[in-house]
Amino acid sequence: MTTDLHPLKHLLGDNRQLPPDDVARRATSYWNSAPMQARALMLPRSTQEVSAVLRWCHENGQSVVTHGGLTGCAAGAEATADDVVLSLEKMNRIVEIDPVGGAAVVEAGAVLQRVQEAVADEGLYFPLDLGARGSCTIGGNVATNAGGNHVIRYGMTRAQVLGLEAVLADGTVISDLSKMLKNNAGYDIKQLFIGSEGTLGVVTRVVLRLFPRPAARHTALVAATDFDAVAGFLSVLQQRLPGSLSAYEVMWGDYYRGVTGEGGHRPPLDRDYPYYAVLQTEGSEPVADAERLEIVLGEALEHDRIVDAVIPKSEAESAAIWDIRENFEQILEPQPVYLYDVSLPIRAMPDYVAAVQQNLTRRWPEGRLYVFGHMADGNLHLFVKPFESGDHRAASDELVYQPLAGVGGSVSAEHGIGVEKLRWLPHSRTPAEIALMRTLKRSLDPTNLLNPGRVLAE
Amino acid sequence: MTTDLHPLKHLLGDNRQLPPDDVARRATSYWNSAPMQARALMLPRSTQEVSAVLRWCHENGQSVVTHGGLTGCAAGAEATADDVVLSLEKMNRIVEIDPVGGAAVVEAGAVLQRVQEAVADEGLYFPLDLGARGSCTIGGNVATNAGGNHVIRYGMTRAQVLGLEAVLADGTVISDLSKMLKNNAGYDIKQLFIGSEGTLGVVTRVVLRLFPRPAARHTALVAATDFDAVAGFLSVLQQRLPGSLSAYEVMWGDYYRGVTGEGGHRPPLDRDYPYYAVLQTEGSEPVADAERLEIVLGEALEHDRIVDAVIPKSEAESAAIWDIRENFEQILEPQPVYLYDVSLPIRAMPDYVAAVQQNLTRRWPEGRLYVFGHMADGNLHLFVKPFESGDHRAASDELVYQPLAGVGGSVSAEHGIGVEKLRWLPHSRTPAEIALMRTLKRSLDPTNLLNPGRVLAE
Repeated sequence: MTTDLHPLKHLLGDNRQLPPDDVARRATSYWNSAPMQARALMLPRSTQEVSAVLRWCHENGQSVVTHGGLTGCAAGAEATADDVVLSLEKMNRIVEIDPVGGAAVVEAGAVLQRVQEAVADEGLYFPLDLGARGSCTIGGNVATNAGGNHVIRYGMTRAQVLGLEAVLADGTVISDLSKMLKNNAGYDIKQLFIGSEGTLGVVTRVVLRLFPRPAARHTALVAATDFDAVAGFLSVLQQRLPGSLSAYEVMWGDYYRGVTGEGGHRPPLDRDYPYYAVLQTEGSEPVADAERLEIVLGEALEHDRIVDAVIPKSEAESAAIWDIRENFEQILEPQPVYLYDVSLPIRAMPDYVAAVQQNLTRRWPEGRLYVFGHMADGNLHLFVKPFESGDHRAASDELVYQPLAGVGGSVSAEHGIGVEKLRWLPHSRTPAEIALMRTLKRSLDPTNLLNPGRVLAE
Repeated sequence: MTTDLHPLKHLLGDNRQLPPDDVARRATSYWNSAPMQARALMLPRSTQEVSAVLRWCHENGQSVVTHGGLTGCAAGAEATADDVVLSLEKMNRIVEIDPVGGAAVVEAGAVLQRVQEAVADEGLYFPLDLGARGSCTIGGNVATNAGGNHVIRYGMTRAQVLGLEAVLADGTVISDLSKMLKNNAGYDIKQLFIGSEGTLGVVTRVVLRLFPRPAARHTALVAATDFDAVAGFLSVLQQRLPGSLSAYEVMWGDYYRGVTGEGGHRPPLDRDYPYYAVLQTEGSEPVADAERLEIVLGEALEHDRIVDAVIPKSEAESAAIWDIRENFEQILEPQPVYLYDVSLPIRAMPDYVAAVQQNLTRRWPEGRLYVFGHMADGNLHLFVKPFESGDHRAASDELVYQPLAGVGGSVSAEHGIGVEKLRWLPHSRTPAEIALMRTLKRSLDPTNLLNPGRVLAE
């Protein structure tokens, strides 16, 4: 790629094209501290500027990698020295919050937590929530169809997008910023851009669905002695508290012990149980909701479904419980550590985890496996830690994905394919499905300039 | 179109290709009693047979119109004498109900009500529900992204599809029958087939998301004297009974009087109120849920949000209330009557309805307008009745859609474009959006043989 980037520089105002030296002062991503690479990093301030940059790149055969908060877990945003990076960080405005219509219009670069807080200030609730909330952007959430902690009640990002604006590879602006819950006027083309990891267009603005802010939110941490019990308790909660249960995050004992070990989180429950779950309810009656939850917990303890439970007595105690689930720095050293986000039927989980553990022990007798995740969504996260330096991703992938084939699982529940899972896509999709994906990619980005080599191998 | 259809006949077994004379014994649709037209009607029994028929039609340039239950409200399934009709009526099996995984696999020709009943027998709940439940098919529901009465809590059909199998125009089978709630492994291509009205592929099997069967369901009919009150009461219900409210169907006074007039339904509440609403809650505690609803209704009566209310004392009384909302034969005579399904912001509804009424009265001083719909979804249905014989659709469309432009509304909330709204699509979609729809259509059906002329004008 040798096209002169000088004309591109003049499309945006001063100082909004960073040269490679400045780009290298940035880290590649949250997960990769190596210097970021790119021919240039562009900082558009408007959809029109995004359109102008893409049109120029399209006309000049210049590949473009789009950047949001760089917290993605599939290396999809890692650019090369040949790419132009398009960072939406300056397009971070919350354009409108409409309390009556239950919708917010935000620019793609807006950080999730800022959006959560801004709508909360208006008495509303945007339920998408994940550990990276302080850095990840709405554009990245949409591009990856992010999941997170509240899928059990509110669905994934896809379910929370009422409208969006995106720019195609050739600079065409596709704008559907309507706030309607229902619109069957023609194909629902916004679905193309949700979860396609920036390969079919660059999302620039999004209309988010908002909900009334729940008057009451209750958290609990429970422990169970076997898998059937922790899965059975989920069924009980779904039967007894329907429309109220908003999170059920299971942690295998090794994970809990790993993050509450020396120098880690203080453990609110004993550290020797095989399973733990953080659960959350949302409702309209603070006192009655708390009583209902206590009754259900009491009965579950009585019937030995769970063997221990703690209900936090303050916001701080509640936050400390969530920290155990969300902040796992404790187990990230020594590197390398490999993170996975498989999905599979709930009933297949114990055998699957056992098979991975067996594979791991065979390959790395000293290796460790940490399992946790969104059980109700059939989504487990696994950290594989070989305790052996070097790049062991291929071997680690093999031992995690090989046992998945037999249970109809997916290699990505919520993180996407990026580049890390390219060779595993055929494990979860048929050749006909992948061929159709390629047809779509060719139709929308015929010269393969948007996030090339992501999702579909080149 | 003069290709000999004889070879096509041999692709399926005996008696599964009906000639034009037999086809003409069928009605065109629920809405149109004229004899059905087609070169032939094919009755495949399997996905492989659908694939074989489509491949042959693709190779021979033969247009195909797919039939489900023929209850669609946009004339999308009305074939011409040049089309081959592909009816999925013999592909109506419920292949599997998985209570543990919360999923059902059904063939596209399965009738909605049969699916509802079959999963109920297993203690589960498939929440999609609409007046045509006794005739409409799951394939049609998916192809049109049907809405219905429970969108407020469960979303449209799109939200209830975990996986699907579809056959492309050239016969390629795209199969994703996984039951996973979350799968971000590549593009979510099933979205292409949901709501595209059979123009991008023929849906043959669907994996439906199931829910636990609610232990309690409560209905009420309320009356209000002004629009702000009936809309305000919805907000109260959403705040007070979050996760429990499963329907809020508003009827304008003229509609209620129209269907409860002489020979119509028995009116459970006086007939002279300006607004009525049927509401439904679902929950886990039969007695406590009923009490909660009574308290909310009592307070609303006390604060004059609503002025009258009735809670049915039996299943039969509850069904009678729903009949008022769903069975409107009473107002379908004299023909013509034109049905609409616009969506728009709730707060814009009173001015919008007033503008339509004004347009109507100007055009047809004796004409009548009947308004009802899924208020919480921003979706109104309108019946326009000119009381003048002849074909007045164009004039009726004009007076309904013209006032919609100013409020950011859609010409179709849930019925789709079909052929009836072809010329109105540009009212709800930009030229760039429509161009992108055409790109998709060209990519997936390059010779324009699947439901040609539906959604996108030829």
